Amino acid sequence: MQFHLNGFEPGEPDIADPAERVLPSGMSGAVPREVDVLIVGCGPAGLTLAAQLAAFADIRTCIVEQKPSRLLLGQADGVACRTMEMFQAFGFSERVLREACWITETTFWKPDENKPDNIARSGRVQDVEDGLSEMPHVILNQARVHDGYLDVMRKSPAKLEPYYSRRLIDLEIAPAARFEDHAVTVRLERLDAGHEGEVETVRARYVVGCDGARSTVRKSIGRELRGDSANHAWGVMDVLAVTDFPDIRFKVLIQSARDGSVLVIPREGGYLVRLYVELTNLDAGERVASRNITSDDLIAKARRILHPYALDVKEIAWWSVYEIGQRLTDKFDDVPAEEVETRLPRVFIAGDACHTHSPKAGQGMNVSMQDAFNLGWKLAAVLRGRSAPHLLHSYSAERQAVAKELIDFDREWAEILASAKGDNKAADAALTQSYFVRHGRYTAGTATHYRPSLLTAEADHQHLAKGFALGTRFHSAPVVRLSDAKPVHLGHVAKADGCFRLYIFAGAGDPAADSRLHSLCEFLSENPQSPVRRHTPAGSDIDSVIDVRAVFQQAHSALAIETMPPLLLPRKGRYGLIDYEKMFCPDFRSGRDIFAMRGVDRDRGCMVVVRPDQYVAHVLPLDAHAELAAYFDGFMLRAP
Amino acid sequence: MQFHLNGFEPGEPDIADPAERVLPSGMSGAVPREVDVLIVGCGPAGLTLAAQLAAFADIRTCIVEQKPSRLLLGQADGVACRTMEMFQAFGFSERVLREACWITETTFWKPDENKPDNIARSGRVQDVEDGLSEMPHVILNQARVHDGYLDVMRKSPAKLEPYYSRRLIDLEIAPAARFEDHAVTVRLERLDAGHEGEVETVRARYVVGCDGARSTVRKSIGRELRGDSANHAWGVMDVLAVTDFPDIRFKVLIQSARDGSVLVIPREGGYLVRLYVELTNLDAGERVASRNITSDDLIAKARRILHPYALDVKEIAWWSVYEIGQRLTDKFDDVPAEEVETRLPRVFIAGDACHTHSPKAGQGMNVSMQDAFNLGWKLAAVLRGRSAPHLLHSYSAERQAVAKELIDFDREWAEILASAKGDNKAADAALTQSYFVRHGRYTAGTATHYRPSLLTAEADHQHLAKGFALGTRFHSAPVVRLSDAKPVHLGHVAKADGCFRLYIFAGAGDPAADSRLHSLCEFLSENPQSPVRRHTPAGSDIDSVIDVRAVFQQAHSALAIETMPPLLLPRKGRYGLIDYEKMFCPDFRSGRDIFAMRGVDRDRGCMVVVRPDQYVAHVLPLDAHAELAAYFDGFMLRAP
Repeated sequence: MQFHLNGFEPGEPDIADPAERVLPSGMSGAVPREVDVLIVGCGPAGLTLAAQLAAFADIRTCIVEQKPSRLLLGQADGVACRTMEMFQAFGFSERVLREACWITETTFWKPDENKPDNIARSGRVQDVEDGLSEMPHVILNQARVHDGYLDVMRKSPAKLEPYYSRRLIDLEIAPAARFEDHAVTVRLERLDAGHEGEVETVRARYVVGCDGARSTVRKSIGRELRGDSANHAWGVMDVLAVTDFPDIRFKVLIQSARDGSVLVIPREGGYLVRLYVELTNLDAGERVASRNITSDDLIAKARRILHPYALDVKEIAWWSVYEIGQRLTDKFDDVPAEEVETRLPRVFIAGDACHTHSPKAGQGMNVSMQDAFNLGWKLAAVLRGRSAPHLLHSYSAERQAVAKELIDFDREWAEILASAKGDNKAADAALTQSYFVRHGRYTAGTATHYRPSLLTAEADHQHLAKGFALGTRFHSAPVVRLSDAKPVHLGHVAKADGCFRLYIFAGAGDPAADSRLHSLCEFLSENPQSPVRRHTPAGSDIDSVIDVRAVFQQAHSALAIETMPPLLLPRKGRYGLIDYEKMFCPDFRSGRDIFAMRGVDRDRGCMVVVRPDQYVAHVLPLDAHAELAAYFDGFMLRAP
Repeated sequence: MQFHLNGFEPGEPDIADPAERVLPSGMSGAVPREVDVLIVGCGPAGLTLAAQLAAFADIRTCIVEQKPSRLLLGQADGVACRTMEMFQAFGFSERVLREACWITETTFWKPDENKPDNIARSGRVQDVEDGLSEMPHVILNQARVHDGYLDVMRKSPAKLEPYYSRRLIDLEIAPAARFEDHAVTVRLERLDAGHEGEVETVRARYVVGCDGARSTVRKSIGRELRGDSANHAWGVMDVLAVTDFPDIRFKVLIQSARDGSVLVIPREGGYLVRLYVELTNLDAGERVASRNITSDDLIAKARRILHPYALDVKEIAWWSVYEIGQRLTDKFDDVPAEEVETRLPRVFIAGDACHTHSPKAGQGMNVSMQDAFNLGWKLAAVLRGRSAPHLLHSYSAERQAVAKELIDFDREWAEILASAKGDNKAADAALTQSYFVRHGRYTAGTATHYRPSLLTAEADHQHLAKGFALGTRFHSAPVVRLSDAKPVHLGHVAKADGCFRLYIFAGAGDPAADSRLHSLCEFLSENPQSPVRRHTPAGSDIDSVIDVRAVFQQAHSALAIETMPPLLLPRKGRYGLIDYEKMFCPDFRSGRDIFAMRGVDRDRGCMVVVRPDQYVAHVLPLDAHAELAAYFDGFMLRAP
């Protein structure tokens, strides 16, 4: 899609009239006085969490935001492969794929060896390694990511809309509250015209602070962001410009001889481009705001770095200057480490409230959304009586460790980006390129690896499915649906619906004769110890808590659907209709056999348990019925 | 996507609350008294035409419909590959791909040889041959196709909404009217509450009757549908049912020994299925309505045919009985054949008003939309002063010939489907399968082949690009964009914007040194005889009438964008920004080289001219500057 030709216009580009591109957003009236979850902040973390909770009509969620309306421009723009996989689960990946700019290659420029005042291309690398994800790395205005979630929320069972113009005054957690109490009391100040200064009080079972780097929620639970002092200053601008720089539609890292670096990020619509411009280092304790840097300064600096290429900026859609700081909060909830055994969390923080990154590794928005995706299903499981509340401790445990790793990575990357000065320019350019390639999985968001815990099993059976590494996100692969031969992606059966997925990879024999497959399915559907039976409420569809899918090794035409276990042809809904989308075969026509691609043991087959946020929780032999049951018993409750 | 589990609910399935799934549609108030184009009928043809014309804010279009609101269920459901290609140009193919049911295989069932009371699978064929289109064959409720167009119309520059509850009373064409007059006077009767019986008079330059098989517009221009008497009666029902028939999610043709045929069409959402049920032949002159057939009759018949499989129908979303008739109108406009040289058309008919088909070949809706796509750009070109009005004669000439061919095909197919009775059952089943395979291109909608005319050149240079057959739709192929290495489909640059596309396939040499490419681009951008210069209005973007694209033979990394002719990096819009999306390279990573796939002469290269409705109009050598200019001069006017 091409748009923004005649100027940046926010909103949905398919709508011809710019005045109609931005849909209204936001609830009028007062916030509810009592809710299950109060989310503070409508950034990527807050909206991901709200969209997740909105899937459940039986959870009362409220999301508030200090700003008066939805975001229209600026801020983050990188959408990692892993984030696209999550958008797929939320149902709006197709729209993002259509509208966003795709990053296929990154090029590197450094001072021309013969004429160091000029820059010259020094390298070109594929942006995402082959096979890392079925999704591309794309770039899209953060505002449009928000719009995607707002649309999901509006259409959801809970029909959520944010309450704008609410400033969090304070929050208080009632001491010694019972688990089911609405123990957190939050005071909000209205900022909207006609209601200025009115104070609303909300009682919530849980409060989640997605309120950014200066999070009031974080402060209210006595935590702080700690880390580097920010001594690299950068400017960023989204511009419509004319240039003869040939790589302007690639992601480009330019390191000049004397004027520092520029990072070029091509943007959605085909014309817009983001430039990150390195400014001089700050002195200790100095703030970039004190420099009075203007957009003209940024343009002038970018021009010097791009020399001998011209840059004629026609419109600046948005710009900002900022200091890089890699900072981290030590724990992401209100429970002190020493009280984890005896106290349950009530207040959480997510996103920039927990960790801040350099924007140029494209991590901030992506990691924030993954925080919320991790927390969302856990809150829903506890609130809906599926899981015991101690599950909630795993949020901080898992995400703080991930944030720590990412911040270390980001610090290193920021140093490299800012380091190409002095005598060893050529060496630096090579270092940059090599670092970029080596750490592609971090920037793609697929390097996250949860350690063994209540939720993530030890790797005792990892050899049965080497490509589904425990603790990493379930790496989708192409398959063909048995019932209708449609080529699909196995991972795309996972929706953001709070369900666990149990993938049964059948052994090599005919599944009709494979007693292990049939025994497992019989155990799951009939045995009182079956986690499917134990944890699915009476009257609910059999796949509404643990969704069982099977993958066979034969072509679909070699199998007879009528010989399959009833669990794989479940009867659902008020009519007891058959769900035909539970069984899959390798996609032989494309030559991509999921068993080979993911290293699944062909003789023995296996089970792969996947969490609602798409992470591999367990790999088990097909006959490990008791182990499977024990896994779920670790954190799930017996259903009524 | 899965939906309709607990009952058929019309509208957008992403919206959780069924009560909110159907957006309001329709204008209130009176229809305008004077318009450029009045479209009668909001079926697939009418809405395609309206969506096309809505792209132009300078054309006053009005679309009226006798029904009181948008369609919610029933009617057609087959969306051919070719139609998906067109939806891509209109911008809603992604949504259809996501929501629709994909047909990948068709299976055939016949009486079991050993036990003829039972049916048994006799064959299985791939539904669409490899490489026929980048789009699949899908099935989606006609109502959702309408919704796609209504959405395009609402978001378009012209912001079109239908006027519902309008019955066409009559229309009159003023004799000897001048070309620019609003010579057609139409009287409409309002049927909506509070306005019943009010008569509105609209004067239009053109009227298009998309008002179905009983078209009042057709009658008003003295034409009639002629063809076979309808002596095959069929029932059709969209049901939610439980069955043990194993192929219920495939497209299936079942021919029973004694009870006739059933055609199974799996539907969107994973649970719904359409069954076409053959009823007994009618006597001459008998109408199916006289039989008083009920939905219970259809179910009972379907059950007998499916024996030994069970069919337990839980809900009937929609059902109907109908007679097959292949009928055709001799000409699709108001100008008698003998007056074509002396008179210009004012009134057109499209879709079922011109031709009726058996629904089971899935042709009706698809051919109707292609009619309107053919007519839409021509009307726009004439109304906007780009083309002389004699271009409008080509609509009936082209589409009547296509309809004739399709009706012949459809008649044959309907006979075969209805013929599996008597002694030679096995032979018939084999014949059916073989016929199905041979005629896959008809059902895919890609067999349309316009003959040489004003718009379609003779095949003098066809050898330069054998895979882009003159008169057939431009067969897209994968390419990589030069500016950013994004893998895209070349055909997807074609939007429903009324533009011609000129694809320049470069010869084998380095384009920087290829004088033919540079000469051609220089001719196009500088020479007064250039069709780009002659036909593009002053002040408009250089690609707004003829959109020039280039495809090179080298990998993108082997080419330097800065050496390319300025025409391929055009400056556009109020800022003169550079459009970077005009140049492409083969997609070597996927191993699919467009030059090899489409038989483009590697030494000589060529030009391929493609019409706004995506049909190949001309293939020319790169140096055929004058021939190119002559082609456009045949029907286009010099721009002001």
